Amino acid sequence: AGLDPDKVAIFVQSDNPDHAELHLIFSMLVTVPTLTRLPTYLEKKDRLDSYGFLGYPVLQAADICVYNADKVPVGKDQEKHIWLANDVAKRFNSLYGATLVEPQGLFTEIPLILGADARKMSKSYNNEIAIAMTEAETEKKLRTFYTDPKKLRKGDPGNPDGCPIYLLHRIYTPGAAESIAPPCRTGELGCVECKGRLTRNLNESLRPIRERRADWIRRPADVWNVLAHGGEKARARTKVVMEKVRDAMKINYRKTT
Amino acid sequence: AGLDPDKVAIFVQSDNPDHAELHLIFSMLVTVPTLTRLPTYLEKKDRLDSYGFLGYPVLQAADICVYNADKVPVGKDQEKHIWLANDVAKRFNSLYGATLVEPQGLFTEIPLILGADARKMSKSYNNEIAIAMTEAETEKKLRTFYTDPKKLRKGDPGNPDGCPIYLLHRIYTPGAAESIAPPCRTGELGCVECKGRLTRNLNESLRPIRERRADWIRRPADVWNVLAHGGEKARARTKVVMEKVRDAMKINYRKTT
Repeated sequence: AGLDPDKVAIFVQSDNPDHAELHLIFSMLVTVPTLTRLPTYLEKKDRLDSYGFLGYPVLQAADICVYNADKVPVGKDQEKHIWLANDVAKRFNSLYGATLVEPQGLFTEIPLILGADARKMSKSYNNEIAIAMTEAETEKKLRTFYTDPKKLRKGDPGNPDGCPIYLLHRIYTPGAAESIAPPCRTGELGCVECKGRLTRNLNESLRPIRERRADWIRRPADVWNVLAHGGEKARARTKVVMEKVRDAMKINYRKTT
Repeated sequence: AGLDPDKVAIFVQSDNPDHAELHLIFSMLVTVPTLTRLPTYLEKKDRLDSYGFLGYPVLQAADICVYNADKVPVGKDQEKHIWLANDVAKRFNSLYGATLVEPQGLFTEIPLILGADARKMSKSYNNEIAIAMTEAETEKKLRTFYTDPKKLRKGDPGNPDGCPIYLLHRIYTPGAAESIAPPCRTGELGCVECKGRLTRNLNESLRPIRERRADWIRRPADVWNVLAHGGEKARARTKVVMEKVRDAMKINYRKTT
């Protein structure tokens, strides 16, 4: 609902077997210790220790490189994964000759959004504001958001740095550095009022996106169509990259026959 | 050269992306500790620790299950890998409903051939008799084969059990249990004479295969043709299995569109 399907290809990744093929090739170029040292694995390995989860960053590298992407818009928490993708592409190129683009992360000015509990905003942590939420649900969820624990009531001086609410203000409230941060610090602006302003601004920004979302939901056949066309666009692109990959590795038997 | 391309499908595995796709799906169903405990990984991990090498048995499981194979003719050294394939297929079936055949190993009477150094015969150990060898090369290589180290000269009593030469006699010399084992034990049969007999019998058995091999080598275009037709046969088969797999997992978006 936030992206225009005429401008970008929206598709189901498992719909394109080229991802799996490049993943398998890449899996030979990454060592086990490289993967076991990555933060996401360390964080979750006690609950999730499948071979596939250990190799998730390898799949991400394939997901990026199979499109020869140069810049990848990601959050700061994905920085190491982009580094790995870059490393794998470099290793491939050094082994088989310059073939793949070596991708770089593309970070916005605010590269990590924090959720209700001040950890990174993530569906897995249930600390997120979702497009699927109504405006009332957004208001309710924002009320649960962590703010400076030393600021108990209006009048107490607060610290906007590291406050998930202020981080969102910086995105959704124009001039937040002047209109939000100073009165928070002096205590003039209380958290309830501050969250109220964010709720209004956030809901206003999301409103057109939420409306388009509601509209798409009424036309499921059109959604499938978008995914089908997106899948075709995606496959047309990865086909070219995979041809080059197989040529470089001299395993392009399909071409020989 | 030993198989009839009209009866079996001979193909290049990397030519069929369905293997990579099922491998990726299976990688979510196998834990890292299961893989790090397998003997082949333990044996080689100090020299070979790529993510792909750790997951090689997962790929083998996909290679088997993508054809819904029920019996897999393997050497005894592959028993644990077949066990893993069976385990993964079971896990898939228990998660998504009966979809895959749960494969079993098919062992011959002599499930492990020993090479020159009495380790399993393997190209990686350079201890093998290859179809590509000439008869003279076969004779020369067999002369290097380990035999009972206590039997130094003809006349010394020997022990055929565990002798790689006797193992091959059991395959290539009819009635070896009567004609080879007893005179070896008594010392009547010396190792030089014993290897000579094996050389003659082995070369005779391999002769028609080696001739067919030489014939194929003269017609490379026909070889590519065999691989192309084999690949088509293989893909026709895996396509059906992968459709069932995606249906079972409810990710068959291709069908929806």
